[in-house]
Amino acid sequence: MPEVDPWGEVETGSYAEKMEKFGIDPITDIEHRMPDNLLVRRGIIFGHRDMDRFLEELENGGEVAMITGIQPSGLFHMGHKLVVDQILMYQDMGAQLTITAADVEAYNTRGISLEKGRELVAEQYLKNYVALGLELDETDFYFQSQAGNDHLSRAARFGRYVTQNEMEATYGSGEPKKMSSAQIQYADILRPQFPENGGPKPTVVPVGLEQDPHIRLAREVARKFRDHDFTKPVSTYNKFMRGLTGGKMSSSQPKSYISLTDSVEEAKQKIDDAKTGGQDSLEEHRRKGGDVSEDMVFELLAYHLVEDDAELERIRREYESGEMLSSELKEIAKSRIEEFLVEHQRKREEAEPAVQQVLDEHG
Amino acid sequence: MPEVDPWGEVETGSYAEKMEKFGIDPITDIEHRMPDNLLVRRGIIFGHRDMDRFLEELENGGEVAMITGIQPSGLFHMGHKLVVDQILMYQDMGAQLTITAADVEAYNTRGISLEKGRELVAEQYLKNYVALGLELDETDFYFQSQAGNDHLSRAARFGRYVTQNEMEATYGSGEPKKMSSAQIQYADILRPQFPENGGPKPTVVPVGLEQDPHIRLAREVARKFRDHDFTKPVSTYNKFMRGLTGGKMSSSQPKSYISLTDSVEEAKQKIDDAKTGGQDSLEEHRRKGGDVSEDMVFELLAYHLVEDDAELERIRREYESGEMLSSELKEIAKSRIEEFLVEHQRKREEAEPAVQQVLDEHG
Repeated sequence: MPEVDPWGEVETGSYAEKMEKFGIDPITDIEHRMPDNLLVRRGIIFGHRDMDRFLEELENGGEVAMITGIQPSGLFHMGHKLVVDQILMYQDMGAQLTITAADVEAYNTRGISLEKGRELVAEQYLKNYVALGLELDETDFYFQSQAGNDHLSRAARFGRYVTQNEMEATYGSGEPKKMSSAQIQYADILRPQFPENGGPKPTVVPVGLEQDPHIRLAREVARKFRDHDFTKPVSTYNKFMRGLTGGKMSSSQPKSYISLTDSVEEAKQKIDDAKTGGQDSLEEHRRKGGDVSEDMVFELLAYHLVEDDAELERIRREYESGEMLSSELKEIAKSRIEEFLVEHQRKREEAEPAVQQVLDEHG
Repeated sequence: MPEVDPWGEVETGSYAEKMEKFGIDPITDIEHRMPDNLLVRRGIIFGHRDMDRFLEELENGGEVAMITGIQPSGLFHMGHKLVVDQILMYQDMGAQLTITAADVEAYNTRGISLEKGRELVAEQYLKNYVALGLELDETDFYFQSQAGNDHLSRAARFGRYVTQNEMEATYGSGEPKKMSSAQIQYADILRPQFPENGGPKPTVVPVGLEQDPHIRLAREVARKFRDHDFTKPVSTYNKFMRGLTGGKMSSSQPKSYISLTDSVEEAKQKIDDAKTGGQDSLEEHRRKGGDVSEDMVFELLAYHLVEDDAELERIRREYESGEMLSSELKEIAKSRIEEFLVEHQRKREEAEPAVQQVLDEHG
């Protein structure tokens, strides 16, 4: 079995160990050249490959690009929002944006029909993306099943540059359905560099560690393909939020996540039911204080709901000292999530026409 | 290793044994319903899968189709002509014709660039096809690399319906470059049945036994694919001509074949140098007679140069009785090949504009 499996469960173990093993550099090396973004400041984006090359091109006024994929599965939740926050960061940096809806991959590896995939992408992803600030009309958005003749023909020819051994060592499997999907992913990753899209340019793919196998082989393909030039894609790696109930956030466990279409009441209830780092009794909490590293409510604040570092630090200090109780921490989170959801759901409705238009164009 | 390898050497061993093992029916079962064609009469087409279904549809006035592929390799020779003779038979029967130029497969499995593949397809194949009688403007001709978004997207999704075990058992390999090529081949084979091409219809693929693995898995894909309906493709199987020097006809051995662009002098010289079934001395030949089964010149006559059965039978009788000498048999073949090549090469020149037009349309 490979270390990490992009089609399997998220179980990335020790980040530092994996970074060392895979040859991923720490984000701290280049943090000062990155935007002032909480994902960077708080180490949620923790590593990269060749991001210095991306930043150098950007600093020299050259063209850079970002590509990410939508894997249509279930409800869009606060864990997924991390991806969008990264897209928005690259949008602000001026990168050309490419977003692929991985409907062929969903079809092959999870048996989701193209129609169902399409519906999920529109309802659960695009509407939320636009509501969160994505400028869809400035984005090269497409479904893999409609990526175009040249895209899909290149994907098929990329097979020449990857051996069965590499595939099996990297993915732990050589199933045709995975190989086809993987080859289309390499084409997705390299798409901003296609000749018709302006040729070679540093292109960042923001991913979780479990997607690194795709990055590694896409870099190999970029190096070996001779029909036209590619520069090796760049990547950044983000940590995952844990689920509200502790352990991993999972679509199959609705109490583990807050969906962006949950009602305010549902969301508040989930926060009330969340795992905290508070002590068992009031007296013990006052004496020992809360443990933020085991507090899923604090994690929600840190990842999404408290932008200001000083404010987050104040909350942490008060909670760790025992001055603030878990119930008080939850009140903060409930108030913030209400504010966020009300605003977001209003914007989500406003996003409908823009999304519909894009879908019509990609019929 | 699999019994036969569509990417490997042609070594089909005993036809009868393989037919039994693979479940291929003898052509003799349906011969009376087939056209009066020397390929059928002489058992060059020796087997089939489901050809009765194709004939029934045709007899009922329904639509039927034929698909075949061009594998760009070297010079086009008399062995390749067997494929064209079959295309022409199906053209006469009224089948819709589809011809794919397998440039992606040549790229992936033999490292031939798309440009080189394109050049070979035009010069060595299409011009000869048209000169031999193919109505190119009535044919759905395309390069795999330009098969279109829907074609290539289906090919990628066919991966869902074939397992790694099946691939390895069938092809003896699960290399990505072969898997990608194979999946595009399934789409090629099913193309006449795409909804945009009129939906399910009996579609025959005339092949050699070594291509049967593709047929078997394309039939599996046709059965399992649920996005739209396919009927299982039909196939016929042809024997291969042996090389003029005995053994197999091989592009790497120019003396083993007569190319359709060879000069008349070259062709005659190759016939003079061919392996015959004649006896060592005149006296012995007159006494024992020639052995047509080991006579490559007789094979050339039987496969290509003598249309009339009675005439071929007369030649056989005279040769086997010792009345006709090898040198006389060769004189017949040289005279016929001259007649054929002169006429063919004239038609080949006339074919140039039509081929150029099709290439321009598939730029």
